[in-house]
Amino acid sequence: MPPHRRSDVVLDSVRRLVRIGATANLLNLLQKQHPADLAQVFSELNESERKAAFSVLLERNVRLAMEALAELGAERAAALLADRSAEDIARYLHEIPSDDAAVIIDQLPQELSAAVLALIQAKPGAGAGELLEYAEQTAGRIMNPNVFALGEDLTAGESITALQNARDVEMVFYLYVVDARRHLVGVVSLRRLLLVAPETPLKRIMTTDLISARVDTDQEEVARQVASYNILAIPVVDEENKLVGVITVDDVIDVIKDEATEDVYRLAGVSIDDTVLTPPRESLRRRLPWLLVNLVTAFLAASVVAVFEGSINAVVGLAILMPVVAGMGGNAATQTLTVIVRGIALGQLTWSNSRQTLIKEALVGLGNGAVVGLVAAVGAFALRGDPILGLILGLAMIINMFVAAVAGTLIPLSLRAMKVDPALASSVFITTLTDVFGFLSFLGLGTLFLRFLQRAG
Amino acid sequence: MPPHRRSDVVLDSVRRLVRIGATANLLNLLQKQHPADLAQVFSELNESERKAAFSVLLERNVRLAMEALAELGAERAAALLADRSAEDIARYLHEIPSDDAAVIIDQLPQELSAAVLALIQAKPGAGAGELLEYAEQTAGRIMNPNVFALGEDLTAGESITALQNARDVEMVFYLYVVDARRHLVGVVSLRRLLLVAPETPLKRIMTTDLISARVDTDQEEVARQVASYNILAIPVVDEENKLVGVITVDDVIDVIKDEATEDVYRLAGVSIDDTVLTPPRESLRRRLPWLLVNLVTAFLAASVVAVFEGSINAVVGLAILMPVVAGMGGNAATQTLTVIVRGIALGQLTWSNSRQTLIKEALVGLGNGAVVGLVAAVGAFALRGDPILGLILGLAMIINMFVAAVAGTLIPLSLRAMKVDPALASSVFITTLTDVFGFLSFLGLGTLFLRFLQRAG
Repeated sequence: MPPHRRSDVVLDSVRRLVRIGATANLLNLLQKQHPADLAQVFSELNESERKAAFSVLLERNVRLAMEALAELGAERAAALLADRSAEDIARYLHEIPSDDAAVIIDQLPQELSAAVLALIQAKPGAGAGELLEYAEQTAGRIMNPNVFALGEDLTAGESITALQNARDVEMVFYLYVVDARRHLVGVVSLRRLLLVAPETPLKRIMTTDLISARVDTDQEEVARQVASYNILAIPVVDEENKLVGVITVDDVIDVIKDEATEDVYRLAGVSIDDTVLTPPRESLRRRLPWLLVNLVTAFLAASVVAVFEGSINAVVGLAILMPVVAGMGGNAATQTLTVIVRGIALGQLTWSNSRQTLIKEALVGLGNGAVVGLVAAVGAFALRGDPILGLILGLAMIINMFVAAVAGTLIPLSLRAMKVDPALASSVFITTLTDVFGFLSFLGLGTLFLRFLQRAG
Repeated sequence: MPPHRRSDVVLDSVRRLVRIGATANLLNLLQKQHPADLAQVFSELNESERKAAFSVLLERNVRLAMEALAELGAERAAALLADRSAEDIARYLHEIPSDDAAVIIDQLPQELSAAVLALIQAKPGAGAGELLEYAEQTAGRIMNPNVFALGEDLTAGESITALQNARDVEMVFYLYVVDARRHLVGVVSLRRLLLVAPETPLKRIMTTDLISARVDTDQEEVARQVASYNILAIPVVDEENKLVGVITVDDVIDVIKDEATEDVYRLAGVSIDDTVLTPPRESLRRRLPWLLVNLVTAFLAASVVAVFEGSINAVVGLAILMPVVAGMGGNAATQTLTVIVRGIALGQLTWSNSRQTLIKEALVGLGNGAVVGLVAAVGAFALRGDPILGLILGLAMIINMFVAAVAGTLIPLSLRAMKVDPALASSVFITTLTDVFGFLSFLGLGTLFLRFLQRAG
């Protein structure tokens, strides 16, 4: 029984119970759900239903309410908390891991956020406040500071006892071993502990060649390591190699999703913080600058066309076929660009095969150009009845497809060489480039062969 | 010391040792690496270097060579094995988990693939052959059939002994409990086993409310469950609820990456199997049909322009500004579409907030249109010296931005309602739509106000 079907039924009941105000029944139903299912239900409710259901749960079961909140996404979570007092919020946030708390605090209205932070930092050792001191998108920001560590002088048996006595340590799979000054010196798996005699010293069974991240390591690099080494958690150390936290694979999954979104967004010229949940004014503020930059480049394309004003005046067919040239160049460039950018992100495209890739894409561009050019030539002849005009369109198409393929490969590769994110070579930007080259080749050829073209009738 | 820096040094040494043919030193160096690092090094080598290094390792350390191969990606892995005999390949593949073996077999040349499969299926209980019987992108296809299970009548102590005696069971965190006929009845965590007295019956400490997937569950749904419940592995059962395999979180990470790629690809009109590693002929075959479909739509846009032939003939400025209208509409639509498609994929956009989202996007479209329209009007006046032409471009821009926003929202939402992947509303497709509407509004307005426009000089 897949859980989303289960939550559909739950969703309807929650809606009904909220509407008729049956608080006791509602509470009863909500308390039976897994936090992740609750988050799913909350996200399907409208704002006022969500507020009502969350309040009912929060009053009677703070932990469950907050666990569901942590799964709901920081924006919505912050919205649900925003009308509470800083004291209450600080108390509630105590129920969830500090890395989850940190992202929610970050999304609260500025004054409230500062007040909550001050309250949390007042308690020594509370993690969320400290996490927010690390830069965004670093290991320090997403780690859980509540990490369980064993002293290097323990035996296997003592380690198991220590583990049995530990509270609130979720998802322990690797046990990190530290020296007296909390320097990370090794790791041992829970399974390994079971397989040896209780009196075996930890030092004998721990692995010392371990993978760790530093607090300032980029989160994408952390995700890459966890994914490529197939590990479930990675310890985080400070500049002195002291163990300060751990990042588990569930947080890594969130990072991977975010990074994928970032790639898609950058290709489309959208800011990473712009989601369906962003208010209109905010979205406008984020999208407009990019559109204005592109307006300048669009006028560049228009200026290219203006150069050929005379030819267009003489043969209006040139103007009519302009959308075909521009559109197809843009499409082909977007295809190439997407394959290249994703190939770089997934590590398939390396320095050693970049020349080979360029040759391949150029060949594909020529092949596409040949077929598309032929069909377009026939189409142009059918539309305008002028075989020479068809021939010119076909030729321009071949040139344009070739340029699109080469630019779609070279631009992201060059950006990467300059250590800039290749996804910034957005399809939006490259489309303008193919517009300019497309018009240059099509209208240029048209002008060259102007005397063979049929004049406007 | 981040591992990628380490592998840079290793890479240079491997290159050098391959070049001078120092087999013993090369083997020595390769054997010191983690399989994931080896895979990284292999992917940076060119084809002949890779072949040479892999052969050296395979001859002396089949397991490590194959583990590295499993991390390298199925396409490259298959290429490295393709010139070996089916018998050798079957033997090598025995060294890696069957789910990894299955994807590699799938990528071998057809005849070789069939031969290897026949050999593997000849051995009863060998997993890779069975996996390939399940449909692609299902839980059955990506699961590891080598799952460790405990009988429900065992005690905690007996379970630990059973675990200690188990061989080749990697990444055990949850211990699945089955009845005499291997029906899945519960789950217990390794940590839980440690916390109870050895004589405690499993039945008393196991959780019976467990999350499982069926062999035919879509892999995306599996990934969604593992991610949202923050679990490390999910058991896979057949139609009769018998335990047949397990999917661990590292496989889920691969699925999440693939699905993200699929979204980006579909938005750009690229087939999911088209990567930088695909041969040119194959890429051409996959991209061309999409371009041809778009050629038809591009001619549709051209036909719209043809309707206004007379106006263009009279005022060439209309033709010159066409690229601005088309380009900007496409850009704005791509932004909206990306936010919407990603919002659906991440579950932020639900039925309950879809009306609100449409209103928001329409507002953003109008806002963008107002600003971009104003700037474009001034730009057009500067370029052509005709204030009325500027006014017409500005108005057309507002209409076009509004249409782009509404279409960019409604089309993916409608596809979703029809249970079609919203990402198929690719930006390529929507760009043509905004071309048509953009030309209609711009040239339409131009024709309406033709007598106020300055004629070509």
